[in-house]
Amino acid sequence: MSYMVAEQKLLNRIVIKLSGSLFKWDTKASDLKDIIQFCKELKAKGIQPILVAGGGEVARHYISLGRSLGADETSLDEMGICISRLNAFLLISSLKEFCYPIVPKTLDEIAQSVESGKIVIVGGLHPGHSTNATAALIAERVGAKLLINATDVDGVYTSDPKVHKDAKRLRRVTIKKLTEILMKGKMNAGAYDLIDLVALKIIERSKIPTKIVKCSIPNLMDAIEGKEVGTTIQI
Amino acid sequence: MSYMVAEQKLLNRIVIKLSGSLFKWDTKASDLKDIIQFCKELKAKGIQPILVAGGGEVARHYISLGRSLGADETSLDEMGICISRLNAFLLISSLKEFCYPIVPKTLDEIAQSVESGKIVIVGGLHPGHSTNATAALIAERVGAKLLINATDVDGVYTSDPKVHKDAKRLRRVTIKKLTEILMKGKMNAGAYDLIDLVALKIIERSKIPTKIVKCSIPNLMDAIEGKEVGTTIQI
Amino acid sequence: MSYMVAEQKLLNRIVIKLSGSLFKWDTKASDLKDIIQFCKELKAKGIQPILVAGGGEVARHYISLGRSLGADETSLDEMGICISRLNAFLLISSLKEFCYPIVPKTLDEIAQSVESGKIVIVGGLHPGHSTNATAALIAERVGAKLLINATDVDGVYTSDPKVHKDAKRLRRVTIKKLTEILMKGKMNAGAYDLIDLVALKIIERSKIPTKIVKCSIPNLMDAIEGKEVGTTIQI
Amino acid sequence: MSYMVAEQKLLNRIVIKLSGSLFKWDTKASDLKDIIQFCKELKAKGIQPILVAGGGEVARHYISLGRSLGADETSLDEMGICISRLNAFLLISSLKEFCYPIVPKTLDEIAQSVESGKIVIVGGLHPGHSTNATAALIAERVGAKLLINATDVDGVYTSDPKVHKDAKRLRRVTIKKLTEILMKGKMNAGAYDLIDLVALKIIERSKIPTKIVKCSIPNLMDAIEGKEVGTTIQI
Amino acid sequence: MSYMVAEQKLLNRIVIKLSGSLFKWDTKASDLKDIIQFCKELKAKGIQPILVAGGGEVARHYISLGRSLGADETSLDEMGICISRLNAFLLISSLKEFCYPIVPKTLDEIAQSVESGKIVIVGGLHPGHSTNATAALIAERVGAKLLINATDVDGVYTSDPKVHKDAKRLRRVTIKKLTEILMKGKMNAGAYDLIDLVALKIIERSKIPTKIVKCSIPNLMDAIEGKEVGTTIQI
Amino acid sequence: MSYMVAEQKLLNRIVIKLSGSLFKWDTKASDLKDIIQFCKELKAKGIQPILVAGGGEVARHYISLGRSLGADETSLDEMGICISRLNAFLLISSLKEFCYPIVPKTLDEIAQSVESGKIVIVGGLHPGHSTNATAALIAERVGAKLLINATDVDGVYTSDPKVHKDAKRLRRVTIKKLTEILMKGKMNAGAYDLIDLVALKIIERSKIPTKIVKCSIPNLMDAIEGKEVGTTIQI
Repeated sequence: MSYMVAEQKLLNRIVIKLSGSLFKWDTKASDLKDIIQFCKELKAKGIQPILVAGGGEVARHYISLGRSLGADETSLDEMGICISRLNAFLLISSLKEFCYPIVPKTLDEIAQSVESGKIVIVGGLHPGHSTNATAALIAERVGAKLLINATDVDGVYTSDPKVHKDAKRLRRVTIKKLTEILMKGKMNAGAYDLIDLVALKIIERSKIPTKIVKCSIPNLMDAIEGKEVGTTIQI
Repeated sequence: MSYMVAEQKLLNRIVIKLSGSLFKWDTKASDLKDIIQFCKELKAKGIQPILVAGGGEVARHYISLGRSLGADETSLDEMGICISRLNAFLLISSLKEFCYPIVPKTLDEIAQSVESGKIVIVGGLHPGHSTNATAALIAERVGAKLLINATDVDGVYTSDPKVHKDAKRLRRVTIKKLTEILMKGKMNAGAYDLIDLVALKIIERSKIPTKIVKCSIPNLMDAIEGKEVGTTIQI
Repeated sequence: MSYMVAEQKLLNRIVIKLSGSLFKWDTKASDLKDIIQFCKELKAKGIQPILVAGGGEVARHYISLGRSLGADETSLDEMGICISRLNAFLLISSLKEFCYPIVPKTLDEIAQSVESGKIVIVGGLHPGHSTNATAALIAERVGAKLLINATDVDGVYTSDPKVHKDAKRLRRVTIKKLTEILMKGKMNAGAYDLIDLVALKIIERSKIPTKIVKCSIPNLMDAIEGKEVGTTIQI
Repeated sequence: MSYMVAEQKLLNRIVIKLSGSLFKWDTKASDLKDIIQFCKELKAKGIQPILVAGGGEVARHYISLGRSLGADETSLDEMGICISRLNAFLLISSLKEFCYPIVPKTLDEIAQSVESGKIVIVGGLHPGHSTNATAALIAERVGAKLLINATDVDGVYTSDPKVHKDAKRLRRVTIKKLTEILMKGKMNAGAYDLIDLVALKIIERSKIPTKIVKCSIPNLMDAIEGKEVGTTIQI
Repeated sequence: MSYMVAEQKLLNRIVIKLSGSLFKWDTKASDLKDIIQFCKELKAKGIQPILVAGGGEVARHYISLGRSLGADETSLDEMGICISRLNAFLLISSLKEFCYPIVPKTLDEIAQSVESGKIVIVGGLHPGHSTNATAALIAERVGAKLLINATDVDGVYTSDPKVHKDAKRLRRVTIKKLTEILMKGKMNAGAYDLIDLVALKIIERSKIPTKIVKCSIPNLMDAIEGKEVGTTIQI
Repeated sequence: MSYMVAEQKLLNRIVIKLSGSLFKWDTKASDLKDIIQFCKELKAKGIQPILVAGGGEVARHYISLGRSLGADETSLDEMGICISRLNAFLLISSLKEFCYPIVPKTLDEIAQSVESGKIVIVGGLHPGHSTNATAALIAERVGAKLLINATDVDGVYTSDPKVHKDAKRLRRVTIKKLTEILMKGKMNAGAYDLIDLVALKIIERSKIPTKIVKCSIPNLMDAIEGKEVGTTIQI
């Protein structure tokens, strides 16, 4: 733990993009207690975590329903942002005095709320941005020392591991290489692949130290302590 | 239909509190198309509907989860309001040009949005108020000619019809009588019974013509056309 | 004073609903200096007071004038809120650096302002809520350890002491008993009786320790120090 | 009345600064009905009145009380603005559908609200500006064709008519002459004399046709119809 | 012109992204009068133009200065957005009554302002989005029938025409082809190339008819009238 | 430097109105580094500087362009305010953690931001006020112990030193005398002379210690340390 103390100056503000998979229709209080406890521990160690909650299953429910009803895509993005903010507020209302008491809704509000020194939890900010891109923008604005993308895969692979058995996880990857991998994926993939290129571009322009890990407390702790885990983006 | 034309001057603005039961986890687009179509028809007849969406099942999911995580009750109310506004926005994004394009969040914003002459759809406004009370306040503020509480029972009964087989639906009920019925229920009932007394108080002080009907398009139309349906509050 | 020190952890945040009778047309600076000094002393003892100012005589003037001019009741509530906020600002502008420098207007703004650790002073928040109910919601949202209703009677009586000579002040009263007393009063009383039931409901759902005392500095201090004064609501 | 019709193109938007003397502690509904009726008549003639309400006696009460309590002067200005907005809202809540339904609080909000084509009523906007200067800024921003300062004197005099018996009312006065008169007055006068020079400067830079009249319906109508009344500022 | 009349139902709302090159340090009033006049003419024909102004040279000045002073990239984006909004307001203040009177700052505000039926002019909305992507989001949100990117090149070329003499302008291009061209360019290019992929993705998901033309009034008119000009994106 | 320590209680909050001449079209990072460094040093000494940035050359460019395009004068003021805020943000984004992270836009927001104890930097607040008057209002609202007007002349002269060779700088000047000097100047001078009378009036009513100095770091330091520099207004 003395390692942590040595690190804490460097790692004071850390932005963590939480996997939307934490927020499901059948999520129970027990599923969220670990992440809540983890935030308190980081805080106790002098680290200020800034969490970006995704929308998860409930967001997808509304987006799907809205699309069937003829809503435009920007409005569907807004629905997803609404749920991601509610997910953020859920964590806030449990963390109470350890946490800034509202969900900031703009970069300016985030800049003001981190002044409190408390844990800050946000959802999405603006249509057209993935929560990944949002997390990268926040990391830029608050001068975060580390950006962690806590996702549901355990890092970046040379190709889709579900399709290609010989796909290998990359421990380190350059922006250029990662862009190529994403572009290949884009041609036949989900709605926001490309927009994650925005996140990548922001990471590149600001040289934000970034790690992609599977969402679990041990992985998050390893990423913060500088241990080998997931994929590190070379900047 | 000529009846409608004769009425429309009187009935120009109508506030309808929509049952939260429209918004379930398994709600499909087809479940909402009737109410959407109904709004357009009212609009075509020169009536301006102001809908107040409830939170329904998704709101209850978040409130239950939040309570397990230790959230305070005011914050739980805010979670419910958040979902009710998302439900409102879902309808707005489907109604498009027939509807005011955002969900107003305060009585002032509602007062401004009804100026557009378009359909206006809102969710909850403030912790501590049921959507019933909210609907009554809105009816006061915009000078509505009718307030309809579209709920999941078909009116007011002399006692709880699930318990007492001889309970009778009341076609008309005074404020005083309804208060007595509600107070009896309060002693062993759900969280917002009493706060519906607030709605009642608002209806009383402003003498807003009010009907309580089971949520269905024929019932809503009957209520608007002045036909016998549900329970009418005598003011 | 060692008593206070022992208490202060428990009593850190206290919500005090100030009687509107402090704010009259002929109120002089000297009438408010005691309450201002009292707030500073609480602060010095490590207690964070959150005051909720009522509207008082000036509010009633505007409400009466507005009603004569045909204003709707929701707008009249808004007029009362406006004056209650001005009363709050009057105290703020006198307390200066001891006090959060603006009047928060929403529960979210209140949650942010109490973060400052300073005295926070608000007025009403939303039409349809008495300042009593508002104070209870605030107590919920900020996790207050005590709610004091500083009013112009010295507690709850078995019946109206102005009418019934044998009415007795209750030192302790259950929610159920108090509800019964209020309901009896409602049938022939002022506009907000019933809405105080909302305050009661909120106190019940969150089990907020609550005392009703006649507004005076000694009474407030007794209530905070846990001495016998006014009426305590049993939760 | 055909005169009016001919004028209405030119006079479409008129800003009227209402004397604070309309809003006294003992103001009754009947004292305000004339101005309310007058606004409706202007609207019927195709003129869009934009009224700027002063704070009057209640504002002075709070300012005096605040000063005794040690409030800074900017905060005292804010108290006056608060009451002037409440006075504006009083008129709005009576004018109902003839009037934009809220009190705009910034020049941008005013610009948006006049788009409605309805009567718009505001109070003060910003500390450090008299309501005269505020009215002039509004006239600039909305392109008003006439600015009327409805005050409690019947025009500009060569010197203070209360002091100098030979003081004469000026039917027309240049900006330069009026500045000289105001500067002489400033040396021993009330708090806002000088700031009325701001109003004058704004009138000068934008060449806004401006009249100063004693506040009465006949005078206001005369000023609008281009008849000889009060003092006209030569631009 | 009868062609226009036939088209106007289809083309009612058109989003035009204006080249930042209109807004230079030495821009004169005469440089902007054509675009102002053009907007009025569109309006007269029943088309509602929604203009998105870029930041241009002044924005680049501040961004460059800010970068030298150590500002983070998100803050630099905010500086660019600030100037683009000022450029928008410049046009608004000249268009006066033909135009919505303020610069909307969020998609919700844009949705409300287009309700006026007037010309609407905005700048950037959020850091991390090019004005191209912003224009595409706006087109989605308001249901625009056409999106025109008025830029300083006359369309999309097979490769960079400044480098490759044999580069050919494409009259039509698929999303897939355009993505490939942009990706090639990205590897050695300016900061926002990639983010224009966001614009492309939005155009793809909502199938917004889109044209890229060199910024001139004849080109804009040709694009609106459906004539062959610049490059059309095949959707 | 022990002098400073002794002073710091008295001088805790200082409002400095920065000359617009710092912000030119050819301003380079090196031109602003001194003022940035100076702010950090003040902060280190326990002084909280509140800077009010002017608009300078870029503001004048937009105002001139807007006037040619027919913008009203209030809108031109708004353009100047927009650029002054951008200038403020430029300094903020360089001062980073030493500085409150956003530009407050109202007196209320300023009151809240100074609570942080950090350097606060603002631009203009409201049309019709010079940045001088704005700085004076801010000094009132935050209880500043000193107001410094850092301008491009080295103090107040008996007459215009560019015209009259025998004009003498005044080391001290009364409000009355300064008003007379300003009034003489007004008759043939620039747009905001008179409005500086507003600043003067505010200084008078609140007795804010005020100095007018030529904008340079040594001068600012001398003014703060109580040394003889520029012109001191006698209050």
